[in-house]
Amino acid sequence: MKDIEIEGVIVQPLKQITDDRGSILHMISKDSELFTKFGEIYFSEIRSGVIKAWKRHKKQTQNLAVPISKIRLVIFDPRLGSKTQGKIKEYQLGRPNHYMLIQVPPMVWYGFQALGDQTALIANCSDQLHNPEEKESLPANSDQIPYQWK
Amino acid sequence: MKDIEIEGVIVQPLKQITDDRGSILHMISKDSELFTKFGEIYFSEIRSGVIKAWKRHKKQTQNLAVPISKIRLVIFDPRLGSKTQGKIKEYQLGRPNHYMLIQVPPMVWYGFQALGDQTALIANCSDQLHNPEEKESLPANSDQIPYQWK
Repeated sequence: MKDIEIEGVIVQPLKQITDDRGSILHMISKDSELFTKFGEIYFSEIRSGVIKAWKRHKKQTQNLAVPISKIRLVIFDPRLGSKTQGKIKEYQLGRPNHYMLIQVPPMVWYGFQALGDQTALIANCSDQLHNPEEKESLPANSDQIPYQWK
Repeated sequence: MKDIEIEGVIVQPLKQITDDRGSILHMISKDSELFTKFGEIYFSEIRSGVIKAWKRHKKQTQNLAVPISKIRLVIFDPRLGSKTQGKIKEYQLGRPNHYMLIQVPPMVWYGFQALGDQTALIANCSDQLHNPEEKESLPANSDQIPYQWK
């Protein structure tokens, strides 16, 4: 069976310029294919073993990259009319082999789990300012989402 | 003697929202006082003990924050007509006590030194796309800059 991407999710490999003194890691620029408009850039740390789930945004599109350590990102598509409605997809993001940008559209549920021993750092370049009123949450073990965190 | 800021350099404390699962770290948004326009966001790692110096940009303004570990940032102002021409200033940037945004204007020389045992991560949200033609370099021990790296 073909591994189905969630409709509207876009994945783009990112450049790592390796240097003994410390690497340069691209994220997003105004001429990137995924770029629409700039709202905000902020970081979210996630300690080893921690799960941060579930969240979704009604309006905001997120552009995520993981410059430190690695995480599992899980996306669930509950959108009526989406070609991938009801689907779940897992992604691995981070260093050194999965350094990429992933664009998460509004209205899908997503959650993070740190992988490895180190605290991971998620960078989020969103297209809108943070607004708690357009954000929703569910507990990690919610029965509204057919996914079991390990 | 008053500690003189380099003309055009702006420092802004940034919010860290502490959480046992991993903190949230603000950087810059479109309504930040320091924000002008979005060019690119990328990351530069700097390993323990490493010095990356000197660089300057002819046109680009950099907005820097250090979400992982800490660094020394040194700025030298060679600009004719600047009120702080010939001045050097050292800044400490990073976690946990110096998490802030610093805006570095074009034409000043700057360099970084990792502090502490851990690889530091510098995030740079610049107002223009990367363009090697508007960038200049000097060696860390250049006699054009009156600063001795330790």
